[in-house]
Amino acid sequence: MFDQKSISTAVGILKQRFGERVSTSESVRQHHSHTTTQIGSQWPDAVVFAEDKTDVAEVVAICAEHHCPIVPFGVGSSLEGHVNAAHGGVSIDMNAMNKVLAVHEEDLDAVVQPGVTREGLNEHLRDKGLFFPIDPGANASLGGMAATRASGTNAVRYGTMKDNILALEAVMADGSIIRTGGRAKKSSAGYDLTRLMIGSEGTLGIITELTVKLQGIPESIGGGICSFPSVEAACKAVIATIQYGIPVARIELLDPLQVRACNQYSNLSLPEDPLLLLEFHGTENGVKEQSTLFGEIAAEFTPHQFQWTTNPEERTKLWKARHDAFWACLGLMPGAEGISTDVCVPISRLAECVEETRRDIEETGLVAPIIGHVGDGNFHVLPLAMPGDDATYKAIAEFASRLSERAIAMGGTCTGEHGIGQGKIKYLKQELGGAVDVMQAIKTTLDPRNIMNPGKLFRDQ
Amino acid sequence: MFDQKSISTAVGILKQRFGERVSTSESVRQHHSHTTTQIGSQWPDAVVFAEDKTDVAEVVAICAEHHCPIVPFGVGSSLEGHVNAAHGGVSIDMNAMNKVLAVHEEDLDAVVQPGVTREGLNEHLRDKGLFFPIDPGANASLGGMAATRASGTNAVRYGTMKDNILALEAVMADGSIIRTGGRAKKSSAGYDLTRLMIGSEGTLGIITELTVKLQGIPESIGGGICSFPSVEAACKAVIATIQYGIPVARIELLDPLQVRACNQYSNLSLPEDPLLLLEFHGTENGVKEQSTLFGEIAAEFTPHQFQWTTNPEERTKLWKARHDAFWACLGLMPGAEGISTDVCVPISRLAECVEETRRDIEETGLVAPIIGHVGDGNFHVLPLAMPGDDATYKAIAEFASRLSERAIAMGGTCTGEHGIGQGKIKYLKQELGGAVDVMQAIKTTLDPRNIMNPGKLFRDQ
Repeated sequence: MFDQKSISTAVGILKQRFGERVSTSESVRQHHSHTTTQIGSQWPDAVVFAEDKTDVAEVVAICAEHHCPIVPFGVGSSLEGHVNAAHGGVSIDMNAMNKVLAVHEEDLDAVVQPGVTREGLNEHLRDKGLFFPIDPGANASLGGMAATRASGTNAVRYGTMKDNILALEAVMADGSIIRTGGRAKKSSAGYDLTRLMIGSEGTLGIITELTVKLQGIPESIGGGICSFPSVEAACKAVIATIQYGIPVARIELLDPLQVRACNQYSNLSLPEDPLLLLEFHGTENGVKEQSTLFGEIAAEFTPHQFQWTTNPEERTKLWKARHDAFWACLGLMPGAEGISTDVCVPISRLAECVEETRRDIEETGLVAPIIGHVGDGNFHVLPLAMPGDDATYKAIAEFASRLSERAIAMGGTCTGEHGIGQGKIKYLKQELGGAVDVMQAIKTTLDPRNIMNPGKLFRDQ
Repeated sequence: MFDQKSISTAVGILKQRFGERVSTSESVRQHHSHTTTQIGSQWPDAVVFAEDKTDVAEVVAICAEHHCPIVPFGVGSSLEGHVNAAHGGVSIDMNAMNKVLAVHEEDLDAVVQPGVTREGLNEHLRDKGLFFPIDPGANASLGGMAATRASGTNAVRYGTMKDNILALEAVMADGSIIRTGGRAKKSSAGYDLTRLMIGSEGTLGIITELTVKLQGIPESIGGGICSFPSVEAACKAVIATIQYGIPVARIELLDPLQVRACNQYSNLSLPEDPLLLLEFHGTENGVKEQSTLFGEIAAEFTPHQFQWTTNPEERTKLWKARHDAFWACLGLMPGAEGISTDVCVPISRLAECVEETRRDIEETGLVAPIIGHVGDGNFHVLPLAMPGDDATYKAIAEFASRLSERAIAMGGTCTGEHGIGQGKIKYLKQELGGAVDVMQAIKTTLDPRNIMNPGKLFRDQ
């Protein structure tokens, strides 16, 4: 499909053009391929470090001419093999494009380069009383977060990347640079190319600039935890909370194994029952009111008290533990690797989906904690396996397959926020059928020679 | 571009297949073409009344075979000539597809056919304590609202159609039926075809089913009005309100001429100054708190009191007047036609854009009230002209052109919510440049013979 000679030619020309900003060292190439799927690392032939959009356009033009794959790279925190170089070629590292170009305080938006990380942006905004709400856990780059349609803990209140980007600038497969919109809060001008690029996983173009929406830092933030006698009871409390219209900012479910992992890793002493971890944003009165309402709802489903706090240290400790959940899980089986997967279902099916998955894990004999952004019906499973334990890897693959099928059968999706990448290509077709042919037609039109992140989203032709 | 003989052949076959559900009567054809642009009505050759998606797929297949244009038709309330049959052909009337197929109360979603109107859906939902928030004014069909990416008064709080649809089913140009998603609240599975179809104005496919998000009816609704000494002062109050994070449900600006029109038409006695009309949704305490906060903010920009009420009759009377604004405007010049236009700018530029537009109207000597969804930076102008007054029509065309250019120059868009249709094709290119080539490439791939609503969005090739 790709010819090694052409790729070498492209790399040679890139070296001439970009000098030391092209690396072919083993360590750099290894660093620029990463996956938590069952597919191993696939190294690019070279890594180019881009400094501005002109660089990106030039790299794409050279690769287009010589039919060389291009894989965009942010911080490498994606989970479904998006940054793997499935067909070799060039990884284009966007980290040096890390400038916040403008903050428009009155308009609650900012214009940033794709290498700016979410923490970097929030650091930049701190003095202005503003923040960018999307928080996928990792300190991901905003370009990568857009490309994979990331979301995370705050999505139940603030939406996902698709809801928080006004416009993008991107270099397309022919090297042209397009801008998909302006800074108006809404527009009905033509096809929504902004949303088409968000979640396209680098297969249509490379994002070189983002205009993102910002939020005012809430006057008050409250948080709390509540244990439940069963996952089903916890899910029912979540459904009632959402239905009541409480604008909860975060509502996370940890299954007992995940709670135990967090207790061990973060030195906590949470009760090892199904646990909801919550956060409320608003005015001081609003947060109190939300907390009280949630407490009343929770009381219908659990004998345990909802413990809440506005104390920043306590909150930070809890959410730090939540963000370290991945590492906490690995701690359950020292030396193990985690194969991360996620699904999302209509919230009415959440309890059933989590329970069936729990049972499946037990029957399969896996160590696999569950943690979820349950306000959206989205949850993650992290099965663990020791390197080389082929039987467990096989069991995990079969389990993940059943999980995707289960979610799809319940009217949900095989991936709520991790994307398709290499790991879920099969399920995309299963979930969306003929719509995938439409996606493929768009891909073929906009990237006829398939140089943009080939081997992702679609089965190789 | 299209051949009348082929169109006649297609109509003949449709008549054989659908019998009395195909009409070629003058009155029916006239009814199925409509525009408030300067382009006159363009009748289809025939109108087919579809009853289910199989009908739609068959109509498309017949039209595809015989190269006959197809123009989808809801209630005909779009404003930029979307339902005009620019190249003749067949108008496909979707009104009989008006069933609410399912309401999932726990999941806050509903599955509806495209002919269901927003009022029809809300009527259906009333007993369930749920509502669908998008309110473009007219009692539009949900299929049409999706196709034109409609929004309206509630968008500042609840977003636009792009934010309130989980998935669509559509018949594509080759007669195939695709489904773009499931019922999960979020997904990162592949290209966002849902958003690609939303706002595509019938040029890519015909929407045959929508899965829409619902909201709980708020416990309390409060509303109010506040006069300002200038449009600038009113806009500054809006900016401060949004920046403070008050989750205002509606915030509308009426210029003095629009207030006068509403006073006359709806028998009100509002002060004929720049006016903000507001609505707050929440708990009883929350609504009180929002109103108090807004009152404090407003006091910094106006000597006039913010008058608020939770009395449903008073609120209904005010919002009825707001919804009748179009008819009220026409009342300013009996017998006149209104040429509706809208733009949207970053909110920091709103005062400047409205003021410049106001001055332009005065200098041009037009009668043209301004009304806006100012929380989003979106406003409408409705210049009036007596039929046959060519000089005024010409002046309006030039004014509308300047307005689009002004909005684009301020980082905004030539249309916030009316769409491109026939009226704004020129400005789409001006606003988005090379991105329009990408749109055209997608159009050409998915509808290679250009049968889906030709003459809209793009210049005829």
